[in-house]
Amino acid sequence: KEQRARQRLPVVPLGIERDEFLKALSELKETLGNEHVEINDKPLQDGWYMEHPNTHDMMTILDDEEFVASAVVYPSTTEEVQEIVRWANKYLIPIFPISMGRNLGYGGAAPRVRGSVTIDLGKRMNKILNINAEDYTCLVEPGVSFYALYNALEERGLRDHMWIDTPDLGGGSIIGNTVDRGVGYTPYGDHWACHSGLEVVLPTGEVIRTGMGALPGNNTWQSFPYGFGPYSDGIFSQSNFGIVTKMGMTLMPNPGGYESFMYTFQKEEDLAPLIDIIRPLRISNILENVAQLRHVTQAIAASGLPRTKFYSGTGRIPSDVIHAAAAETPVGDYTWAYYGMSYGPAHIRSHKLALIDAEFHKIPGCRKIDPSTLPADEYFWSRDRIAAGIPDIHELRWVNWAPNGAHIAFSPVSPIRGADATQLFELGKAVQDKYGIDFFPAFCVGLREMHLIVEIVFNRDDPEEKQRALRCLREMVDLAAAKGYGEYRTHLVLMDQVAGTYKWNDGALGKFNERLKDALDPNGILAPGRCGIWGKRYRGFGWEL
Amino acid sequence: KEQRARQRLPVVPLGIERDEFLKALSELKETLGNEHVEINDKPLQDGWYMEHPNTHDMMTILDDEEFVASAVVYPSTTEEVQEIVRWANKYLIPIFPISMGRNLGYGGAAPRVRGSVTIDLGKRMNKILNINAEDYTCLVEPGVSFYALYNALEERGLRDHMWIDTPDLGGGSIIGNTVDRGVGYTPYGDHWACHSGLEVVLPTGEVIRTGMGALPGNNTWQSFPYGFGPYSDGIFSQSNFGIVTKMGMTLMPNPGGYESFMYTFQKEEDLAPLIDIIRPLRISNILENVAQLRHVTQAIAASGLPRTKFYSGTGRIPSDVIHAAAAETPVGDYTWAYYGMSYGPAHIRSHKLALIDAEFHKIPGCRKIDPSTLPADEYFWSRDRIAAGIPDIHELRWVNWAPNGAHIAFSPVSPIRGADATQLFELGKAVQDKYGIDFFPAFCVGLREMHLIVEIVFNRDDPEEKQRALRCLREMVDLAAAKGYGEYRTHLVLMDQVAGTYKWNDGALGKFNERLKDALDPNGILAPGRCGIWGKRYRGFGWEL
Ligand SMILES: Cc1cc2nc3c(=O)[nH]c(=O)nc-3n(C[C@H](O)[C@H](O)[C@H](O)COP(=O)(O)OP(=O)(O)OC[C@H]3O[C@@H](n4cnc5c(N)ncnc54)[C@H](O)[C@@H]3O)c2cc1C
Ligand SMILES: Cc1cc2nc3c(=O)[nH]c(=O)nc-3n(C[C@H](O)[C@H](O)[C@H](O)COP(=O)(O)OP(=O)(O)OC[C@H]3O[C@@H](n4cnc5c(N)ncnc54)[C@H](O)[C@@H]3O)c2cc1C
Repeated sequence: KEQRARQRLPVVPLGIERDEFLKALSELKETLGNEHVEINDKPLQDGWYMEHPNTHDMMTILDDEEFVASAVVYPSTTEEVQEIVRWANKYLIPIFPISMGRNLGYGGAAPRVRGSVTIDLGKRMNKILNINAEDYTCLVEPGVSFYALYNALEERGLRDHMWIDTPDLGGGSIIGNTVDRGVGYTPYGDHWACHSGLEVVLPTGEVIRTGMGALPGNNTWQSFPYGFGPYSDGIFSQSNFGIVTKMGMTLMPNPGGYESFMYTFQKEEDLAPLIDIIRPLRISNILENVAQLRHVTQAIAASGLPRTKFYSGTGRIPSDVIHAAAAETPVGDYTWAYYGMSYGPAHIRSHKLALIDAEFHKIPGCRKIDPSTLPADEYFWSRDRIAAGIPDIHELRWVNWAPNGAHIAFSPVSPIRGADATQLFELGKAVQDKYGIDFFPAFCVGLREMHLIVEIVFNRDDPEEKQRALRCLREMVDLAAAKGYGEYRTHLVLMDQVAGTYKWNDGALGKFNERLKDALDPNGILAPGRCGIWGKRYRGFGWEL
Repeated sequence: KEQRARQRLPVVPLGIERDEFLKALSELKETLGNEHVEINDKPLQDGWYMEHPNTHDMMTILDDEEFVASAVVYPSTTEEVQEIVRWANKYLIPIFPISMGRNLGYGGAAPRVRGSVTIDLGKRMNKILNINAEDYTCLVEPGVSFYALYNALEERGLRDHMWIDTPDLGGGSIIGNTVDRGVGYTPYGDHWACHSGLEVVLPTGEVIRTGMGALPGNNTWQSFPYGFGPYSDGIFSQSNFGIVTKMGMTLMPNPGGYESFMYTFQKEEDLAPLIDIIRPLRISNILENVAQLRHVTQAIAASGLPRTKFYSGTGRIPSDVIHAAAAETPVGDYTWAYYGMSYGPAHIRSHKLALIDAEFHKIPGCRKIDPSTLPADEYFWSRDRIAAGIPDIHELRWVNWAPNGAHIAFSPVSPIRGADATQLFELGKAVQDKYGIDFFPAFCVGLREMHLIVEIVFNRDDPEEKQRALRCLREMVDLAAAKGYGEYRTHLVLMDQVAGTYKWNDGALGKFNERLKDALDPNGILAPGRCGIWGKRYRGFGWEL
């Protein structure tokens, strides 16, 4: 991407004069130390995944300078986070907490409100506070990545004793991913369900510990999530009601063996019968992990080669081009690939694998791929690592599909039912065809539901392509909602729209969220607009997008 | 229990004159119909489990007329619940919702504040709104009991297709049990974790649907719990923030076979090593269900015979009496019994059962009981039914231990660790010895934590015995908290005390709960005091017990 000088000057939060803002920052420097308060006045560098910026989204779909921070601050303790929150209330400055800021596809490190002060929690609060090998749990700070936890287990000789669960990319923050309700691919893939215990700084500066954490001297904060009384953890996920400074996470015992498998299916129309075969196997835990059913187009892109290597025309890349490319790969040609893993000792696995094999083979043309025929850099092996809780970054490769590749996701939830899968697949394909965008659908199969993840890859140096991608997304969101499908998570820029689709009974849930927001954050300073929730100081001024 | 005339007159909520109250009730009769508003002016009948009262606790530990309703109302729809809530706000009358009111051991049907108007949701709102055999889910109203759901599956020919999970007693409400975070004994035993989607009437009268329920036309309300944005379900459990009018529940696929097992251990001191053996087996899902480790005393009581059949002295019943009685039973003498179940086809079960057998036999004197030697009314068979999701009421029998038997529970949470188990066991035994109360400890082993459930059985016609039981409980709660152990759930009368033990950081969590309470229920009318949370209209007037 071409490097430009900044056009729109250093940014200052709305409602405060520049001088007053600088004075406020000086005050904060006295609390945090000079070097821990950085004004964002240099050109915006996108870097790459491992060296990503914390001032903005390295994959922005808007104008580069739209969702940018005015400053970034680096607390080192919970008390310092409290100080920052009190400071924000004093000056009515919007603050936006990130753990590591690798929320790519959903907004990266960017704040929702231009000129917010970003609290980069992860840089200095990055300790693994506890690893408990008896209870199979850990307690982490926001800066602990999946890689870091994995490495710590390895260093302590515990890697064979217990596993972590990792999303497709291992460089994100465990806390950041979990509070955004991200998913991984072992049986512990539902990260929110697997956490136990939070420490949260409230938007007014107080700090609470949830669950058993509220009981002094307890030794169950990480093993019993609920505690006594209202179980409030959930309102701190996908919200702007608090800043999570510590989180407990449960870890999976080594299952005593594991084995990846891959099945391919030839025809697009195999989707519906296949999904109907998957459902009972998944709910019965014969298919044990959050597995992926991927379309061949994304697999070709996962080679890491740019689209131009395959095709130079406009519009969606023709099917025959994709199938021709697939035929050249070690896997051979197909349309859908199911990547799964079976866990446990060999004789236990063979029971499950035999059931799966018999069921999958009911689809004509189904092929079981023999892993020993696949070279070491085949995408299959990345899925194999991830389903065994080994962090990876192979998945980044398909972002190279476009020059200056960036991506943004459409992620609607549906039951695990063939009819729903087909409906969402056709909807996505039709809308993306209309906008001439290549279609990368992947179904992540949870326990009773699946997320269809459609990644739009775009050139972040091409304003027209960005606009097209965004219009396409907005259309898919609305059409899906009209059919009863809603997003499980979304990008900053779509949050108001997506929240608006959850509108039963005249938007009762949204109003309820606003009521909680106003009670907990009377000045509305914390991450205004995140997940479509605006404090009363912001409502009615047209902040929604 | 002797039937007495009422001493303390019909009760009226504090802060309203009797005439005004009667006028208010007449107004409500116009909305609900005459027969659906009942003033509580007749003698208080305790009935028995299947015909329990809804005006008070049939097992009260306080004076009979202390925690009693002024009236009971019977809504038939969510809209009527909204009307009742608006009415309560208009007259500032405390209301207390129950689903079926069988919360025995934790307060039964009683309201926390004397003279509250009880909303008996279950009587008329008792429909199973949906059973989805494809997704293995259902949607129920408050009056659906575990028995009712079980029978419905049977009637629809689905009993072989999927299982429910039931607590020890099957007559309770699925919603009531789940919002109080009750537990059952199949792998779906953590009811809160297994629910998906709520409809809630807020204390100000609005109604929301959580999760995917907020998306009009969705078909995922019961299969994806989180939806988009803050996941607020948790704050409606163990709280007084809303009235749940519908709830989704996931059901377990028939595992393809099952097999109960029972092991006994001879010595009290076997507890610690046994618990340490259980922990890794449980976390690895070799021990698959919420299983119970029970002390022989309770097993003797579970025969249903009164204590006087065994012993007529005071103080804790001597160990040798219990062991002599145990020696006469088909199981023979022991101190601890582990009741578990293994699921799946026979060859899968045998893998797990062999591991368990080898581990348990590390404890000298361990015996595996052969079920074929046990008569049909042995307690074992009740555990067998319950672990297979078949509702039961055998468990009621030990309540006969005392004349006019009633009970109340002490239920602290600990890690699954021998040292903790011993510490709690010794603590409970010492305190109960001090008060001369028989000791019924049972450990319910969750996934990474266990609840020790200590049931105190008392004569509810003996004021001295009741006082003694309560003083004993209060002492156990405080001593346990001082060592870092907190209750997972508690009786109405102990709620303030237990909430008070969750006091980290100057009671920050309690203050946070009050902040939510005031925001959602500005008049504080909904279930004041439940789980130790009082609205601002009640705080500072000494309502706490
Ligand atoms: C190729 C590719 C594949 C991906 N695959 C997956 C996948 O498989 N599964 C998946 O879940 N995601 C996936 N993602 C998305 C993303 O990379 C991960 O979810 C990543 O872990 C999120 O970034 P992070 O953990 O650094 O969180 P952050 O960016 O630090 O946090 C995410 C957001 O949560 C909020 N937040 C963060 N920390 C706190 C806190 N302490 N208190 C309060 N609020 C906070 C903030 O609003 C923040 O913007 C993928 C992305 C790409 C590019
Ligand atoms: C011998 C014995 C054994 C037991 N074993 C178990 C066991 O194994 N596991 C277990 O969990 N319990 C057990 N219990 C306790 C109790 O019987 C069950 O939990 C029972 O299911 C609770 O009663 P209920 O379902 O009728 O709920 P209710 O009494 O209707 O509800 C419980 C409480 O929740 C609140 N509530 C209810 N409905 C709503 C609503 N719709 N909206 C808002 N708040 C509401 C109210 O405050 C109410 O008091 C046992 C009791 C006995 C006597």
